[in-house]
Amino acid sequence: MLTLTLIGIGTGNPDHLTLQAIKALNAADLILIPRKQGKEDLADLRRTICAEVISNPATAIAEFDLPTRDLATPDYRQRVDDWHDAIAAVWTQAIAAHQGPTTKVALLVWGDPSLYDSTLRIAARLSPAPHIEVIPGITSIQALTAAHALTLNEIGAPFTITTGRRLRDEGFPQGVDTCVVMLDGECAFQSLAPEGIQIWWGAYVGMAEQITLTGPLAEITPQILQTRAEARARHGWIMDIYLLRRG
Amino acid sequence: MLTLTLIGIGTGNPDHLTLQAIKALNAADLILIPRKQGKEDLADLRRTICAEVISNPATAIAEFDLPTRDLATPDYRQRVDDWHDAIAAVWTQAIAAHQGPTTKVALLVWGDPSLYDSTLRIAARLSPAPHIEVIPGITSIQALTAAHALTLNEIGAPFTITTGRRLRDEGFPQGVDTCVVMLDGECAFQSLAPEGIQIWWGAYVGMAEQITLTGPLAEITPQILQTRAEARARHGWIMDIYLLRRG
Repeated sequence: MLTLTLIGIGTGNPDHLTLQAIKALNAADLILIPRKQGKEDLADLRRTICAEVISNPATAIAEFDLPTRDLATPDYRQRVDDWHDAIAAVWTQAIAAHQGPTTKVALLVWGDPSLYDSTLRIAARLSPAPHIEVIPGITSIQALTAAHALTLNEIGAPFTITTGRRLRDEGFPQGVDTCVVMLDGECAFQSLAPEGIQIWWGAYVGMAEQITLTGPLAEITPQILQTRAEARARHGWIMDIYLLRRG
Repeated sequence: MLTLTLIGIGTGNPDHLTLQAIKALNAADLILIPRKQGKEDLADLRRTICAEVISNPATAIAEFDLPTRDLATPDYRQRVDDWHDAIAAVWTQAIAAHQGPTTKVALLVWGDPSLYDSTLRIAARLSPAPHIEVIPGITSIQALTAAHALTLNEIGAPFTITTGRRLRDEGFPQGVDTCVVMLDGECAFQSLAPEGIQIWWGAYVGMAEQITLTGPLAEITPQILQTRAEARARHGWIMDIYLLRRG
């Protein structure tokens, strides 16, 4: 029976790796690394991590081209479903193509496999079903709060993790005064009435390129928009995240 | 100027340590370890971690007795405030008592310093204000989801992190179908109408003693209550956490 190990690798700082992740990488027969057009940096980071911490000569690495979503499929959910099917098929091919034992196959997951990541959902499509093992990794939420020396919660208070789309469509989450916003390509915080809200923003959190800004949303929004646009132009891509607190 | 490094150490599995945490431990002049009556296991774990990963002979370790909360203070917030003041005073004494350089002082924080932890708030009381550095660590939320091979969010959906007290007083959080409940000493999930809710429960998550249970809340509640009571009696203490999903 195949064991598929999903290894959280943190947010781009190789030092985010846990000892558990390093042991899991060295226990794998085969590590699958996706190549994604326009995101060569991320494949490079996975290669660097493997080169730095794998000491087991029996651990093989195979790269595969990540399928792209078919933009001709009009329905969003159907498009994502089809895409996940295609990725599962490519994994299956890559595993079958490997010469030698493939009892333990590992995938390196950006951040943590539990948080806004599809790897567990794709793994559930494999047939026969493998045994799934998850190794937690540092998330961009944690890299953000560490960079700002900030707590997620106020004493005894709840908080919500949400997406840029939800923030734009539904406003500040109900029942909480703190939220963290992920997957926001369009700076959805601009859709809020900014009075009384503080923002802690970060891009490339945890990486050498890390940028952080914080202040009252009403005052600092223009600076975040400009900093973000410049960084995106410079790097060709951006990943950013922010925490909002009101009251 | 003093640098105070708050190092997230994960949830009791020494392999949760990141390379960044190990480097920070070895960069410290002095590591402060709290002793807490009835939680000797936790001080032991910190000692074990230090013994396993510190290779710098210049790194010293000092233990201190954690002050207790003054139950004679009737107001909860005042009691916590006074307690944090007392802890800050004990840190200051322990740092002053150390012979040799104390430019870099480190504290080992269970989980991650950003999540339902007081260390950042206590550090803010030190005078003169130190430079604060935060090293993220694996949280019990991540150890729970890893143990269950579970995602926190449904596709594109938000989720809320809350406490047992809030769940009991306010019910299932508004605007989300998934919540994670922490700091719950009284199984607050019993206060919910259980129909349509699934629970993923874990105790001692990430540790060798880990126990997990999952099922429809209406069916599995008695088994969780019994398992929890037995484990608590056996170990003398328990830390548990759970994820609830409805719909």
